[in-house]
Amino acid sequence: MRVRVLIRPKAGILDPQGKAVERALPALGFGGVANVHVGRLVELDVASLDEAEQMCERLLANTLIEDYEVQQA
Amino acid sequence: MRVRVLIRPKAGILDPQGKAVERALPALGFGGVANVHVGRLVELDVASLDEAEQMCERLLANTLIEDYEVQQA
Repeated sequence: MRVRVLIRPKAGILDPQGKAVERALPALGFGGVANVHVGRLVELDVASLDEAEQMCERLLANTLIEDYEVQQA
Repeated sequence: MRVRVLIRPKAGILDPQGKAVERALPALGFGGVANVHVGRLVELDVASLDEAEQMCERLLANTLIEDYEVQQA
């Protein structure tokens, strides 16, 4: 099955990429942008959603500073 | 509105992060993993999906080597 994993910085953890985007957008003429967060997207073929969650715990995400969400793609 | 942008390497473009994950997983005991792709996830508050697409064209994605997909979160 095709699975999509969304990996985001945990709430309260510094997100410098998000901050950089949030500052750059107004300079390009895009006003009113807020709460920008940048994370990672991993898509892969696996046997089950459960296996994908185990992969997140062991390799794909740094669970100390990141949250992950596994979805069927 | 809350918008989610999925950014992926274009088909045919080298994806070294994806390859690294694909090689690392079997070493951790996860067999049968295939077609791993690693991209970026950007989540932000914007006025419209259309505005988010313009942001992708101008800042968020490198359209030479990346495809993007804008979704309402």
